[in-house]
Amino acid sequence: MSAPDDLTPRAASLDAADPIAAARSRFTLPEGLVYLDGNSLGALPSHVPDAVADVVRRQWGHDLIASWNTHDWWGAQTRAGDAVGRLVGAAPGQVVVGDSTSVNLYKCYRAAARLRPGRRVVVTDPASFPTDLYVLESASRDDGFEVVHASPPDVPALLEERGHEVAFVSLSQVDYRTGERWDVAGLTAATHAAGALALWDLCHSAGVMPVDLDALGVDLAVGCGYKYLNGGPGAPAFVYVRRDLQADVRNPLSGWHGHAAPFDFGPEYAPAPGVTRMRVGTPPLISLLALESALEAFDGLSPEQVRAKSLSLTGFFVECLDRLGLLDDGPDDGAGTGLRLVTPREPDRRGSQVALTHPDAYAVVRALVARGVVGDFRTPDVVRLGFAPLYLSHADVLTAALALRDVLAGGEHLRQEFLERARVT
Amino acid sequence: MSAPDDLTPRAASLDAADPIAAARSRFTLPEGLVYLDGNSLGALPSHVPDAVADVVRRQWGHDLIASWNTHDWWGAQTRAGDAVGRLVGAAPGQVVVGDSTSVNLYKCYRAAARLRPGRRVVVTDPASFPTDLYVLESASRDDGFEVVHASPPDVPALLEERGHEVAFVSLSQVDYRTGERWDVAGLTAATHAAGALALWDLCHSAGVMPVDLDALGVDLAVGCGYKYLNGGPGAPAFVYVRRDLQADVRNPLSGWHGHAAPFDFGPEYAPAPGVTRMRVGTPPLISLLALESALEAFDGLSPEQVRAKSLSLTGFFVECLDRLGLLDDGPDDGAGTGLRLVTPREPDRRGSQVALTHPDAYAVVRALVARGVVGDFRTPDVVRLGFAPLYLSHADVLTAALALRDVLAGGEHLRQEFLERARVT
Repeated sequence: MSAPDDLTPRAASLDAADPIAAARSRFTLPEGLVYLDGNSLGALPSHVPDAVADVVRRQWGHDLIASWNTHDWWGAQTRAGDAVGRLVGAAPGQVVVGDSTSVNLYKCYRAAARLRPGRRVVVTDPASFPTDLYVLESASRDDGFEVVHASPPDVPALLEERGHEVAFVSLSQVDYRTGERWDVAGLTAATHAAGALALWDLCHSAGVMPVDLDALGVDLAVGCGYKYLNGGPGAPAFVYVRRDLQADVRNPLSGWHGHAAPFDFGPEYAPAPGVTRMRVGTPPLISLLALESALEAFDGLSPEQVRAKSLSLTGFFVECLDRLGLLDDGPDDGAGTGLRLVTPREPDRRGSQVALTHPDAYAVVRALVARGVVGDFRTPDVVRLGFAPLYLSHADVLTAALALRDVLAGGEHLRQEFLERARVT
Repeated sequence: MSAPDDLTPRAASLDAADPIAAARSRFTLPEGLVYLDGNSLGALPSHVPDAVADVVRRQWGHDLIASWNTHDWWGAQTRAGDAVGRLVGAAPGQVVVGDSTSVNLYKCYRAAARLRPGRRVVVTDPASFPTDLYVLESASRDDGFEVVHASPPDVPALLEERGHEVAFVSLSQVDYRTGERWDVAGLTAATHAAGALALWDLCHSAGVMPVDLDALGVDLAVGCGYKYLNGGPGAPAFVYVRRDLQADVRNPLSGWHGHAAPFDFGPEYAPAPGVTRMRVGTPPLISLLALESALEAFDGLSPEQVRAKSLSLTGFFVECLDRLGLLDDGPDDGAGTGLRLVTPREPDRRGSQVALTHPDAYAVVRALVARGVVGDFRTPDVVRLGFAPLYLSHADVLTAALALRDVLAGGEHLRQEFLERARVT
């Protein structure tokens, strides 16, 4: 079926007015695919294959061990860190790239616990991405801490009551399932008012919105390299430590790359003076340098421009859903589409994704994939569609909405092949 | 200068009789270079650039998120782990690849500490690679353990005396500086006799000798992916957990990839049943798959064949040094070459490197590099030459020995440019 008469020209005019539309040409995507899973694995920047080939053939294969100096492999974690810092409001010298988000969370949790002696409570959102919860559980056991769960809107009241016990508050800027964006400024201020540290997980915000870490006084932050930063599968994560805290931070993973003088090979650990103390072992350089190269796709784009495009895409998608009559808002009586909007309609409360619930969410996702619209499923009933502002157009958004309409209208998601669950989704 | 008359034909006859000489053709090395630093960064297997390009262009760029299933990215850590297992005597299901050696050491130390409740002492070699010492210091602080230092030959006597207090003994199979190879069988048996766990660092042995982890009952082991396994710069490391221990091992870094059912996104951590519980976060797949591909360079070669070649290379190098009169064995009166052999002459006690001390060791290394012979310097006075059995010939060994002779005879190492220390060596 075609679109209502005015949606196609509206998409075209939004794209024509898009100041960062040209960024799409920086990426390689399969012809005809509408890729709405950049919040799970970002697309390939077109220049990265050659950059990786250079790392492999020339730097590794030809220059070999000398590359640590001649190609400054040693500086890659901080170079990439500073490049990430430009996207999250961190001045140079406060971010390093390396290890996974999970490992970086462990470092931060253990470090933060020691910075507020006498306080034995940590606060987190029970809807956090599971690894955040798992690692916090382990770290808190190590430190003898109590983990208290609170949804972000309930955190200020909790801090009013128990703030004097709280060492740190660990939250995600954007909920990975619902796409709801929380108020980093207000929650950080409330955390600080209680004398606690604010730790933010930026996995679903870095690369799609301004974060303003320095300006907001955030203490510690982590984030993912392979989602909106487009660093490639499993790209190393990043960790931010506010400059004033760095000298007091102890990294429990005291590997030699975090040492003040690693090539002295001394017997005692002496942490590097700055954020480089958050480094651990030799980083996976092919993946790390792929990420560093990928970050060039952001050259010349401000976080504000990227955010405006992101909101335009998600806003237009919700508009399409409305116009196409795809959203149920009445009673759950089985008479409607079964599709409900989870992500807030208010732009300020929205990340760069639109999450929808549907009783057959898994099958809907698979039926969309069969139509060339790639999103993902999150248990138990969420259709999660990520809108990466650098390589998606409003025309893509309309295509996705029409595909969703056609899947539901045609009952395509009820085919047996789509209802069977694959191992990884 | 040329070689003594018989060394050139002797190198040629050793190479002619080398049953794994053809493995050299599996690697790409710069023309004319004698690369004796494979114990710091292994050479590039020739098929790896295409494998990496496929990961980047097709798997990431084209197949995108579906690659987790279609290319079984999810299984990469255990697939590569099993491939490493074949080189270190571990049956499948006991090794995973991921994270750095430092991070894996932390997991093992923390896990081992909990497996021997009531015991509060750990034993390690003060000559261990520094990261082993640094991470053990941190982990032991977390667990309230006392770290006792003992050189491997002194460990059995220490265990006689204090063995009932010892939770685990952590040693390296090969000393990273001296190249001395320790008796894994005897030391593991002595450790077990004391009721303690044996943890081995295989960074300088995996890929150059049989290790026999299963046969010797080693409990935990870690090792490096980028040295003799040739996995590329900063390739992920590996960790081995003996099958019988796996159910009782707690990974302090309880990330979602170690969860029994990661895609249920449940709020509680439940460790995977086997060694996969040692996984943490999403692994750096480009680097990881490069390593997996690189391991194919070992296809058809047994660890015993590789060890025989390794000993032949290092033995021939020492023979050349002797024949060329390069080794001092008299008093340190300044009359000799200043070069002393640190690595044991007995084959059983030798890793795959030859370490030499020299008062100007750093400058000697640089002068050798200028002659196309790449080794490395280890503080304070060690010239460290690694002999990777898969891509070096006895002719290379002779070339290196002659270069060393010429450097010392010509005083080439005394040039100012070589005496100045670079940042990373």
